[in-house]
This record gives sequence, C-alpha cells and structure tokens, in this order.
Amino acid sequence: MAEIPERAIRLLEGRHLASLATVMPDGSPQVTPIWIDYDGNSIIVNTVEGRIKDRNVRRDPRVAISIHDAERPYEPLIVRGRVTEITNKGAEEHINVLSRRYMDEDPYPHGGIDDQRVILRIRPEKVSFGLD
Amino acid sequence: MAEIPERAIRLLEGRHLASLATVMPDGSPQVTPIWIDYDGNSIIVNTVEGRIKDRNVRRDPRVAISIHDAERPYEPLIVRGRVTEITNKGAEEHINVLSRRYMDEDPYPHGGIDDQRVILRIRPEKVSFGLD
Repeated sequence: MAEIPERAIRLLEGRHLASLATVMPDGSPQVTPIWIDYDGNSIIVNTVEGRIKDRNVRRDPRVAISIHDAERPYEPLIVRGRVTEITNKGAEEHINVLSRRYMDEDPYPHGGIDDQRVILRIRPEKVSFGLD
Repeated sequence: MAEIPERAIRLLEGRHLASLATVMPDGSPQVTPIWIDYDGNSIIVNTVEGRIKDRNVRRDPRVAISIHDAERPYEPLIVRGRVTEITNKGAEEHINVLSRRYMDEDPYPHGGIDDQRVILRIRPEKVSFGLD
C-alpha cells in the first residue's frame, strides 16, 4: 500500500470534490465527481448500489482519484488504487457524516427512498502530486 | 457524434477545471485535472507531449471528461468520447488562449522551455448531466 503524505490527508479530509475514474465494461474510462473520506488507511467513497461506478468497480476494482484545493488547482493529488471492500455496513451513517462535512446538512438530504448506500474502500497503490 | 446541448457549451467555454480520464497501458484508469476548450464540434485539450495522458490516448483514444460549475457541483457534465486528432499545429497559440481565459495571463507562464505543446481533439460520443 502506498503511503499517504500529510499534505494529501489534508486534501482527503477537506471539503474538496474529487473525481473518481473507473473502467467501463468495454475497457473505456468513466469519470464522475465524488465526495471522499479517509480512514487512515483507505480512501472511502460512498455511493448507491447500481450506479455506474458501483457496477464498474464490482467488475474491475481498479480506480484513479484526482483531488485538489481550489486555491491550488495545479497541484492535484492523484491516487491510483484498487477497491478492496464493498459494503453496505455503516454506509447510511457515513453518507450523513459526508453530508455534514460537505454541505453542513445532516441527514443527507438527497437520498432516494430506495437507495441502497454502499461504501467503497480503496487501497492507494500510487500517490503523486501534480499534473500528469 | 453526440450533440452538445447549450447548457454544456456554457460549461465547456467557462473557467471550470475539468477532469480527464484515460486508460493506462495495463487497462487501469488514470485521471487528471485539465483546462478545456470547445470548437463547436470537438472538445479540445492542450497538453505536453510525453505526459501520461498524451501517451495514453496515443495508445487508446477513449476518454471521459467530467466538468461542473462550482455553484452546481452535483450536476456535472459527463462526456465520453474518443480522441480523433493529435496535433502540434496551433498548440502554442492555443495554450495562451486558455491561459488568458483561465488565469488572465497571456502568454501562458508555466511552459517549460522544451515543452512540445499538443492539442488533443475529442469527439463526444455520449453526453449526460448528473452523477453516475
């Protein structure tokens, strides 16, 4: 597992919207904005079962994440890694934690009544700063 | 080619930093922040020869782009498409145009003396709004 430097942790624990790239069934890339969290070991993404990114990582766990501070857009943190766990456990509570952090709202106000929230736990394998 | 709605054109022609996803040699995804332009048909990215994204699209032209207005982060424009042209022609002038638009600076102040600028012209194949 790649080490996450202190400067990266500040980015991961802030309110910065990240971009998550996954692989489509045909091998082409997909990318979408995401909220992001960090538990000291893994990067955590919270999504809804059945979304494209959820379906993609169940088939191919390899992902890339880009995140930057709006004040320093040209020094993004780029993480490439792998989804090592997909779980519903704690996912409902966790989306409220993210909602509070990103929007000052708790509970999360945009949930669909049938949404099954899911946590994707991502192990960082390559961590770098800067455009590439 | 997918049609680009008016609302998308406003995003593509603004100062919003986009995210470009490409495919690494091993099939895993890569993502990085980019400036972006639109010529009425293609989305245009300006990079430096030899960067990871440049090398990736020369091998596999399939890309995905996410871009959003900071005021409406949860309604991103997502474009999936294909690089149809890679050219140095006009790329030096074009980075200055982007620099003016994004940073109010012309010429572009961060160029390396040996940088060979290159334009990637991307044909949109699938265009959508919203998180996925």
